Amino acid sequence: MKLTKSILGAAIALPLLSLPAFAQETEFATKADTAYIFNTLLFLIGGFLVMWMAAGFAMLEAGLVRSKNVSMQCLKNISLYSIAGIMYWAIGYDLMYTGVDGGYMGSFSFAYAFDDVGANSLDTGYSIASDWFFQMVFVATAASIVSGTLAERIKLWPFLIFVVVLTGFIYPIAGSWQWGAGWLSEMGFSDFAGSTLVHSVGGWAALAGALLLGARKGKYTANGVTPMPGSSIPLATLGTFILWLGWFGFNGASQLAMGTINDVSDISRIFANTNLAAASGVVVTIILLQIMYKKVDVTMVLNGALAGLVAITAEPLAPTVLQTLFIGGMGGVIVVFAVPLLDKLKIDDVVGAIPVHLLAGIWGTMIVPFTNSGTSYGTQLIGVLAYGVFTFVASLIVWGVLKATIGIRVSEEEEMLGLDKAEVGVEAYPEFGRG
Amino acid sequence: MKLTKSILGAAIALPLLSLPAFAQETEFATKADTAYIFNTLLFLIGGFLVMWMAAGFAMLEAGLVRSKNVSMQCLKNISLYSIAGIMYWAIGYDLMYTGVDGGYMGSFSFAYAFDDVGANSLDTGYSIASDWFFQMVFVATAASIVSGTLAERIKLWPFLIFVVVLTGFIYPIAGSWQWGAGWLSEMGFSDFAGSTLVHSVGGWAALAGALLLGARKGKYTANGVTPMPGSSIPLATLGTFILWLGWFGFNGASQLAMGTINDVSDISRIFANTNLAAASGVVVTIILLQIMYKKVDVTMVLNGALAGLVAITAEPLAPTVLQTLFIGGMGGVIVVFAVPLLDKLKIDDVVGAIPVHLLAGIWGTMIVPFTNSGTSYGTQLIGVLAYGVFTFVASLIVWGVLKATIGIRVSEEEEMLGLDKAEVGVEAYPEFGRG
Amino acid sequence: MKLTKSILGAAIALPLLSLPAFAQETEFATKADTAYIFNTLLFLIGGFLVMWMAAGFAMLEAGLVRSKNVSMQCLKNISLYSIAGIMYWAIGYDLMYTGVDGGYMGSFSFAYAFDDVGANSLDTGYSIASDWFFQMVFVATAASIVSGTLAERIKLWPFLIFVVVLTGFIYPIAGSWQWGAGWLSEMGFSDFAGSTLVHSVGGWAALAGALLLGARKGKYTANGVTPMPGSSIPLATLGTFILWLGWFGFNGASQLAMGTINDVSDISRIFANTNLAAASGVVVTIILLQIMYKKVDVTMVLNGALAGLVAITAEPLAPTVLQTLFIGGMGGVIVVFAVPLLDKLKIDDVVGAIPVHLLAGIWGTMIVPFTNSGTSYGTQLIGVLAYGVFTFVASLIVWGVLKATIGIRVSEEEEMLGLDKAEVGVEAYPEFGRG
Repeated sequence: MKLTKSILGAAIALPLLSLPAFAQETEFATKADTAYIFNTLLFLIGGFLVMWMAAGFAMLEAGLVRSKNVSMQCLKNISLYSIAGIMYWAIGYDLMYTGVDGGYMGSFSFAYAFDDVGANSLDTGYSIASDWFFQMVFVATAASIVSGTLAERIKLWPFLIFVVVLTGFIYPIAGSWQWGAGWLSEMGFSDFAGSTLVHSVGGWAALAGALLLGARKGKYTANGVTPMPGSSIPLATLGTFILWLGWFGFNGASQLAMGTINDVSDISRIFANTNLAAASGVVVTIILLQIMYKKVDVTMVLNGALAGLVAITAEPLAPTVLQTLFIGGMGGVIVVFAVPLLDKLKIDDVVGAIPVHLLAGIWGTMIVPFTNSGTSYGTQLIGVLAYGVFTFVASLIVWGVLKATIGIRVSEEEEMLGLDKAEVGVEAYPEFGRG
Repeated sequence: MKLTKSILGAAIALPLLSLPAFAQETEFATKADTAYIFNTLLFLIGGFLVMWMAAGFAMLEAGLVRSKNVSMQCLKNISLYSIAGIMYWAIGYDLMYTGVDGGYMGSFSFAYAFDDVGANSLDTGYSIASDWFFQMVFVATAASIVSGTLAERIKLWPFLIFVVVLTGFIYPIAGSWQWGAGWLSEMGFSDFAGSTLVHSVGGWAALAGALLLGARKGKYTANGVTPMPGSSIPLATLGTFILWLGWFGFNGASQLAMGTINDVSDISRIFANTNLAAASGVVVTIILLQIMYKKVDVTMVLNGALAGLVAITAEPLAPTVLQTLFIGGMGGVIVVFAVPLLDKLKIDDVVGAIPVHLLAGIWGTMIVPFTNSGTSYGTQLIGVLAYGVFTFVASLIVWGVLKATIGIRVSEEEEMLGLDKAEVGVEAYPEFGRG
Repeated sequence: MKLTKSILGAAIALPLLSLPAFAQETEFATKADTAYIFNTLLFLIGGFLVMWMAAGFAMLEAGLVRSKNVSMQCLKNISLYSIAGIMYWAIGYDLMYTGVDGGYMGSFSFAYAFDDVGANSLDTGYSIASDWFFQMVFVATAASIVSGTLAERIKLWPFLIFVVVLTGFIYPIAGSWQWGAGWLSEMGFSDFAGSTLVHSVGGWAALAGALLLGARKGKYTANGVTPMPGSSIPLATLGTFILWLGWFGFNGASQLAMGTINDVSDISRIFANTNLAAASGVVVTIILLQIMYKKVDVTMVLNGALAGLVAITAEPLAPTVLQTLFIGGMGGVIVVFAVPLLDKLKIDDVVGAIPVHLLAGIWGTMIVPFTNSGTSYGTQLIGVLAYGVFTFVASLIVWGVLKATIGIRVSEEEEMLGLDKAEVGVEAYPEFGRG
């Protein structure tokens, strides 16, 4: 089609422009067409920003694991993003959105069908494919959360199989309850962009895996907790900035419409609040760390930013800025106190994903009624519990079956050697890693 | 202009809004104006996404060369992107798009003229400068492909001179045949976003250089192929994610119009297909590697993603999802089998650019008639051959002249020392690299 | 709101689409609504691109400091971006934009109030929150400039306190003179996107700090200047590419409107010019370095790109391409000659931010009348001097007070040890850095 651009563009690609000049003044754009284009464009921009978060998780995790496991973390992240896309097309989307009708899941019908080329209906108000793309990158986010927690000791293939189940079944079924207009949505549960539906779901799945998998060798000994510092702080920082950027798409495009001045103004408020919640998470974390430890651990600060983002995700539109700073700042508090708490419980969460995504996700969901008068604390609690029980139990079953069959953990020798040599065959830093 | 924003915005920058309120209801947006804005916005968004691919190539290549050549690879990538922009303005754009008329090249007229400020014609349907920007980032992509293959032994200046010729002459002349409405376009050849025009052209130029340049010292010995693993897998992974993100602009904005619901829906389908082709490339590569080698080499998986992207680029709109998975997945197959094959042929392609861009580009172009009924295998083959012969021969001549005059290869001592010390004077990792 | 998407979307989120079909042809989009959406979208896209520049500065600086100070640089960059957002909401925005009226500053009124949800006025022509978001990322840019110059020896907390003052007071007061419609704007000063208002202001603040802070230990000795090469060239390169990408938002969205074909065409011209100015900075730097040193120091080339970008920022629309190449190319000249000059003056600017942002910013501002006939060299000089005197003196006072009270420099032992161990408690590369 490209050849038409310069030479034939006006005549072929843009027929409306080739009308006689006198007609141009009389041909007006319809509201429906214009809104359709803006709405679709919102999904496309939001979608590529959230897709970019896959790179963010990859860099965050590559930076926070030891150099002997970095290649594996890269491999897992590009793989899970790919599997999520295919599974969400093959099974997930219909299971989440088609025919839920107040119930507990949608329909099992192999492969979601995009409209044929040329067949677009104004009735939907946006392109079907753009919506699929935008929803697909969300399920990939949930899967990304799992890979960080379980790093440095899980085998490749059981992890990939879990991703297949999570993105094809667990996430879509749970998602249908709310975004698919299922029972929780009818009850009045509220989760704007997924503090619970995406982040907590990922967090519960990660927690279930961490419990069955056990801690890394040597992490918890009689002498206490052994620090296992990440291999590259700048990569972890880069990952955090990528996630922060992607979150404008995550929260902003969850407005789902940009064709009116109200919608685009709401998106703008969401951008501002999303940014300020993360900023507050950063500042609160820094102050707490300085007071408590006299040093400002940058990895905690990065997680403080992310926890602020997760916390505001359940309701990024309604809060005033002051409320936003409170909601996001509490994300920082959660990180500072929950990271050492998990170590006390001997739950080995390599990158801190459980505090960031699960705990801050619960916090963000539970605080919605504070700023959104149409919601209730009771219903929010029911939703949080429902997602927790279902995701945790379903994940435990899947991890349990995998453990009992093919096994989920590398051997002790392989763990010492590092997953890169053991399973990838490629060292991340062959010239200067110790690993 | 910025000062007008808050205070005078309504009056100066946006005069239409300062009309009396009663007039606002009667002033409607015209189809032509709205389409012009949407089309131009598509070029701008697509353009900055493809510009970002320059960073993707830089990171991919920086990660896949040894640490003693990383600074050079960074230097080459920012230089080639800069040269491509200047040459495409000075000579390339007119040579590709002006007055081709079914022929073999456009006009030689120094420096492409953007419209003057304020002189915009609705007839084109988009801003002239936005189109130039979007086309310019494509020529930079072609040049990026060359730099990876020839890494670790080519001298800086002959490389830069080759980039001048490639971006000012070879790419634009070849491009004019199809996108400039030249002879191949008249014959019915089809290449939506450049599997052949961009990726194969880059690949042929790289192959010609690799043959004249020879392999790196010690790569192919009597004992077989010496592995020379890349210095940083996370950077290579980051580069791949950047390229994947940029590809939404590459393929999506090649629709060239966003002002109707049909166009924006086509762009959405292209986004979905582009993503799924890459995902399929990843999954197929992982499965093949596991079966064949029992380990999953992450650098092959990264190239599998890229090969899937290159393959779908010739026709990202027409295929169904199943067809897309097949087309992209075959990209993965090509990578797994062609990378070792090149080593057997002792063609030293440092980053695997020839399988990814040349071979998967040919595959994607040849498979177009499978999904696009308006095309024929014969014409596609003619196009592939025409681009191959012209680009390969032209490149061979340029590389040959450079080799015979200033030389294209560093001395053996400089190659051992690394190009960073030899030609850049700055080590990439002075504190921990070996070299 | 997400649940409405599939099921209830047409009815609730997009009420206009649920009208009977016959009404769709008669409902036209108004110019005012459409322009409002396009303008707001411009701020959002421009805003997220400039936000991304925060990551660019972080990577650039992380790459250009030694490995023992990398974690600190990451911490400072994410912190300053966070503080900038909060301060610009709490104090800065009103101080810069509200009630300046040809004067020297706006109003002190705690906390900028976004419109309430649902309260959007067509009169402004864009969403209030989108404008705030776009302006906010600019102040963060100014603060980022400071952190690079002062790296490797400044303490964390005095730096953060300075950022509070810079982003809450110094930048907004200075900004009000021009973009807030203050006295310089009335006089006819011109600075389209901030060569002076953002980049020079950051540069002056950095220079004041560098003078009070002094050079790094061992940098300037009796034997001359000791090279202290940066720890990672690829990260510095990545940072530069990120900044280059973000600059399309920085300059392009400073057009402040996208709702007419003239505006979107101007934005397109700005994209092309911005890109070509950077390209020229790169090419000129490479040629000069080759001639003068016989080696092409890639860190200088990266700074050449940035200086080209800073130079074109004062007027990215009016110049022809040839003029753009000249303006941007002179940025490269400035870098090549000013970096060693600063070393002669024993001003220790770790990343070269003073040549890039201050000197190229002055150059770009002073050359505006060459291409923009509505401006005068005299007024430009007055503006440059006014910004210089005010920012330098104000910064000197703040740095001076901090130095006299809590101190601004780490101890000699801590500097030797590295700020990462001393103040962050986390090494950037624990496994392979020298520390």
